[in-house]
Amino acid sequence: MFRMRWSAWRALDANARSQIAEEAEAALGAMESIGSGGSALFSILGHKGDLLFLHFRKDLEGLNRAELAVSSLQLFDFLDPTTSYVSVVELGLYDSTVNLYEEMLSEGIVPDSPDWAARVRERKAVQATAMAPRLDPPIPSHKYLCFYPMDKKRGEDRNWYTVPIDQRRDMMREHGMIGRRYAGRVKQIISGSIGFDDWEWGVDLFADDPLVFKQLIYEMRFDEASAVYALFGPFYISLRLRASEMGNWLDSADPSFGPR
Amino acid sequence: MFRMRWSAWRALDANARSQIAEEAEAALGAMESIGSGGSALFSILGHKGDLLFLHFRKDLEGLNRAELAVSSLQLFDFLDPTTSYVSVVELGLYDSTVNLYEEMLSEGIVPDSPDWAARVRERKAVQATAMAPRLDPPIPSHKYLCFYPMDKKRGEDRNWYTVPIDQRRDMMREHGMIGRRYAGRVKQIISGSIGFDDWEWGVDLFADDPLVFKQLIYEMRFDEASAVYALFGPFYISLRLRASEMGNWLDSADPSFGPR
Amino acid sequence: MFRMRWSAWRALDANARSQIAEEAEAALGAMESIGSGGSALFSILGHKGDLLFLHFRKDLEGLNRAELAVSSLQLFDFLDPTTSYVSVVELGLYDSTVNLYEEMLSEGIVPDSPDWAARVRERKAVQATAMAPRLDPPIPSHKYLCFYPMDKKRGEDRNWYTVPIDQRRDMMREHGMIGRRYAGRVKQIISGSIGFDDWEWGVDLFADDPLVFKQLIYEMRFDEASAVYALFGPFYISLRLRASEMGNWLDSADPSFGPR
Amino acid sequence: MFRMRWSAWRALDANARSQIAEEAEAALGAMESIGSGGSALFSILGHKGDLLFLHFRKDLEGLNRAELAVSSLQLFDFLDPTTSYVSVVELGLYDSTVNLYEEMLSEGIVPDSPDWAARVRERKAVQATAMAPRLDPPIPSHKYLCFYPMDKKRGEDRNWYTVPIDQRRDMMREHGMIGRRYAGRVKQIISGSIGFDDWEWGVDLFADDPLVFKQLIYEMRFDEASAVYALFGPFYISLRLRASEMGNWLDSADPSFGPR
Amino acid sequence: MFRMRWSAWRALDANARSQIAEEAEAALGAMESIGSGGSALFSILGHKGDLLFLHFRKDLEGLNRAELAVSSLQLFDFLDPTTSYVSVVELGLYDSTVNLYEEMLSEGIVPDSPDWAARVRERKAVQATAMAPRLDPPIPSHKYLCFYPMDKKRGEDRNWYTVPIDQRRDMMREHGMIGRRYAGRVKQIISGSIGFDDWEWGVDLFADDPLVFKQLIYEMRFDEASAVYALFGPFYISLRLRASEMGNWLDSADPSFGPR
Repeated sequence: MFRMRWSAWRALDANARSQIAEEAEAALGAMESIGSGGSALFSILGHKGDLLFLHFRKDLEGLNRAELAVSSLQLFDFLDPTTSYVSVVELGLYDSTVNLYEEMLSEGIVPDSPDWAARVRERKAVQATAMAPRLDPPIPSHKYLCFYPMDKKRGEDRNWYTVPIDQRRDMMREHGMIGRRYAGRVKQIISGSIGFDDWEWGVDLFADDPLVFKQLIYEMRFDEASAVYALFGPFYISLRLRASEMGNWLDSADPSFGPR
Repeated sequence: MFRMRWSAWRALDANARSQIAEEAEAALGAMESIGSGGSALFSILGHKGDLLFLHFRKDLEGLNRAELAVSSLQLFDFLDPTTSYVSVVELGLYDSTVNLYEEMLSEGIVPDSPDWAARVRERKAVQATAMAPRLDPPIPSHKYLCFYPMDKKRGEDRNWYTVPIDQRRDMMREHGMIGRRYAGRVKQIISGSIGFDDWEWGVDLFADDPLVFKQLIYEMRFDEASAVYALFGPFYISLRLRASEMGNWLDSADPSFGPR
Repeated sequence: MFRMRWSAWRALDANARSQIAEEAEAALGAMESIGSGGSALFSILGHKGDLLFLHFRKDLEGLNRAELAVSSLQLFDFLDPTTSYVSVVELGLYDSTVNLYEEMLSEGIVPDSPDWAARVRERKAVQATAMAPRLDPPIPSHKYLCFYPMDKKRGEDRNWYTVPIDQRRDMMREHGMIGRRYAGRVKQIISGSIGFDDWEWGVDLFADDPLVFKQLIYEMRFDEASAVYALFGPFYISLRLRASEMGNWLDSADPSFGPR
Repeated sequence: MFRMRWSAWRALDANARSQIAEEAEAALGAMESIGSGGSALFSILGHKGDLLFLHFRKDLEGLNRAELAVSSLQLFDFLDPTTSYVSVVELGLYDSTVNLYEEMLSEGIVPDSPDWAARVRERKAVQATAMAPRLDPPIPSHKYLCFYPMDKKRGEDRNWYTVPIDQRRDMMREHGMIGRRYAGRVKQIISGSIGFDDWEWGVDLFADDPLVFKQLIYEMRFDEASAVYALFGPFYISLRLRASEMGNWLDSADPSFGPR
Repeated sequence: MFRMRWSAWRALDANARSQIAEEAEAALGAMESIGSGGSALFSILGHKGDLLFLHFRKDLEGLNRAELAVSSLQLFDFLDPTTSYVSVVELGLYDSTVNLYEEMLSEGIVPDSPDWAARVRERKAVQATAMAPRLDPPIPSHKYLCFYPMDKKRGEDRNWYTVPIDQRRDMMREHGMIGRRYAGRVKQIISGSIGFDDWEWGVDLFADDPLVFKQLIYEMRFDEASAVYALFGPFYISLRLRASEMGNWLDSADPSFGPR
């Protein structure tokens, strides 16, 4: 996310501005339309930044190249970085993990033995193939994006990481039920960032009606997994901005928001 | 909220200053007087900023356009953003929600069933129509504005989100009683920001005597909803500044504060 | 509080410096000597700032005008704001409040009834008149100023705002006794900032021997009101600087500190 | 870690850029290849910085000289420091310490007596010699680096420093077992920073597949030593950048990442 | 503590640099050699700053003059303040205080009576004379300085300030025993900053082997006073830099670190 240095930008003459805007439109337009993943632009509300770049890439190397590509735009001379978040799309697998563990125990496999580890690896490989499409989603084409990072609480008394796995599964199931009631109105992409950034997960919510973000998150705040165990980071709310609307946005000339 | 770069401003000659001030007065004057909602300007006390822009708009798109409009003023070259808050006006509906739940239970509707959800939706639509005026308030015409964001505590032992709804209703009722005793002296607008900003609610208090803010908030600090469950963010205190007084304010020429 | 941009300041020639210093001396000298309240200057120790302006005014409008007046000095081009605190002088009235409550209960007045509220209002008006001088103090003429903001703790178990009023009165009495033992050596001005700034109270201590600040605050740290219920913000320690010493201070030319 | 001032960098002409890049490549290339320890460069993902310099040196004096050497590069004119971490490689010695204590007790040596201290010193000297190679590791040649600092919790109820040493040893053993299962996939270097920096330990993980960082840290989050007693600081994820690729990186010209 | 603006510094020609360095060497050399107290320079490791000035003075006025003197150096144009700490050297007097209290109680003096206060004052005066040399130490001549501020915990359950004085004395005794075992290897100066800065104490450790800092602080972390009741602020580690080595340091020309 970046804050725009409007004063410096407007100090340019109109020719320079339109030349820089065209370069940005072309480069960002190309990043929008690469096959899977790709990039999208958002206009952020409030002082946390003006532009949010969302990059979906196959690996961290691709992410770093996307960063370097943005930083080599002429437009970058007018952007100050405010924050960022690095994470990898992941799936909640509590149900299948608990099932697998019960299956292995019933077969008499000793926990943490080589056999146990081998079976876990094997099952994960099967799942990875089956779920590959869900791990490589396109950027949803909705008008609004709500992003926030979160942790599971590790308090002195309330500590997610000391709760038995079947209780965690039950809480995540209840949590998932709420999400499912919002299917069609909100598209949710959960990414994991343990080892990559300062919170454990990142949540991207996409919708065409931003009030739905508020309803969904408020409702979830009362389920046990959230009420007792969730810690929330900062929230960022933004509007989709097509690369081709970049010029209008830069001219504060009433850009049309939304993906198409 | 913005801090004014006074040195750069005063480095301009008088002509440039008055031309920029006139542009700002005209543009902000127009934003003051648009139909419902509109915008208002405030002069902030202390180092947290010098100018506070309050924008009431129908949707986030309108808010973003208001931001872009401000950022396209020549005056913006002399403003550094310090903070902001994004939220949506909401009404406390604990009483009506508890009533509805009791009504549905007495009719034998199964909680979270399709019937339950349908009745909730239907009732909310009715309320939304009835309360539309309260959801789209004009900016009150008082001299002082106190703004602060807040959360309900989610501590290890004291956790608002695990308290049964009827107890929460009782606490909010008691809390509301105190507010009601200040009717006429304070105008309060509560907005929700779950999903939109870093705290759960924003509170805007408007009054003509700023000591009333202190009395009201101090008194509320002892009711159970606040004493046990409220977490308060930063407080901002400011004076209303008519757009037409902008020029005087910019000249530090003893502006007249207040809405008229 | 402001940090001085020494490099930019010293880049000026001696004429410009002395002209700006004279303007500041004159303007700040005038602010020092206005009737009640007035302003005072302090030289801050450490990196939190170089100059502290203390403004006592009758109302927030007066405070904001004082801020604008400072920001219109040429010297302001060399000052970066670091922090500030907005509050209003108040008196601890636990004893008289508890007495009043007991009196009303003994007369059979129902708590929070209209009669109760009327009697409270009436008594407060009487007190306000009697105590007006204590609410409008001059800035004490001591050499050192120690300022810090504080809150009463609202922890999950230890929560000032859920303690019964007579226990709070007893704790404040014990707390006050310690302060009284330092009478003559420390002048203390307590101000309230609920609704005005981020902490609940501001404490200004004035003394001619700064070690007394340390002794007083250390001793108080063991009384129950502080030990269990106080949360302390940042501490600022500074030396009084007469406006007429401003020029020497700006030249780092061994200014004489103290009010006279 | 440093953020690159891309605008200023690109404002240079191509000649100046390549001259500065060559100086940096030569100097950093030399630091890469000094005998033991040496330095390595990484390209950081996200806004926390662009370049991470990892310096392994025999002593703090060597570290400070490395800092001064980097700051004397022409490239440094385009780098803003964002953060840093100072620590010294250490080994977990819970097992050998507990063994030694038991041995001494069984021999009747009085704890904390001169004999006790002498034996501890003597044993440490033996270990220091035996473990010298592990205390002076080369920088591992993997493509990805994950760094984070951490503390052991000192909560009111859960306090690592009040847990008996044999329980701490058992927890660290269990913790170590998880790490051992990742041998070959992750190279881990633990350094201590009590007295040197704001957290107690720094963790450097090196791997060729960054997902392994996430798996390892997630798995560890459930062992008792981490679940109950670990506090984690910020996480930094970065890609190895050979000094000889510096020029390409500075041109955003698709640098090849990795150590060779 | 200050960060050096290396780019601006190196943009100067060699003549200007050596002239500014000479002025700094002369001025700081004079501050190094004033009678008691004096000043010392340190080169800081990491991004928290580049130069640390340690000023020992008789009073706050002297400290403020030292600050103003540094800020009037030409070198100051290349220094940005990062942090600072204001405190006064103090002695731990738990033993003598407990002894005095027991003595007075055995004589039947009523606690907090005028007699009690008089005797406390009298005894303190005697101690102040006896301990004056320890309250006015020279800056130790060791190569490394470790500085950190700390508080005693005031948690909801674990609260130093509600522990009876004889238990606090016992804990401080045990704490002091550890320190004494490091006599000769570490010189420790404790200063108090209640009322002067944001933490309650500042700790300056001086040694010729920096690993001793880590060993000492790690060992102390397990004694009850630290394990249960200490809160630690940021840690700063630095190398002594003679004023006469300033020029070499400013040229990154392999300065010789240490006091002589």
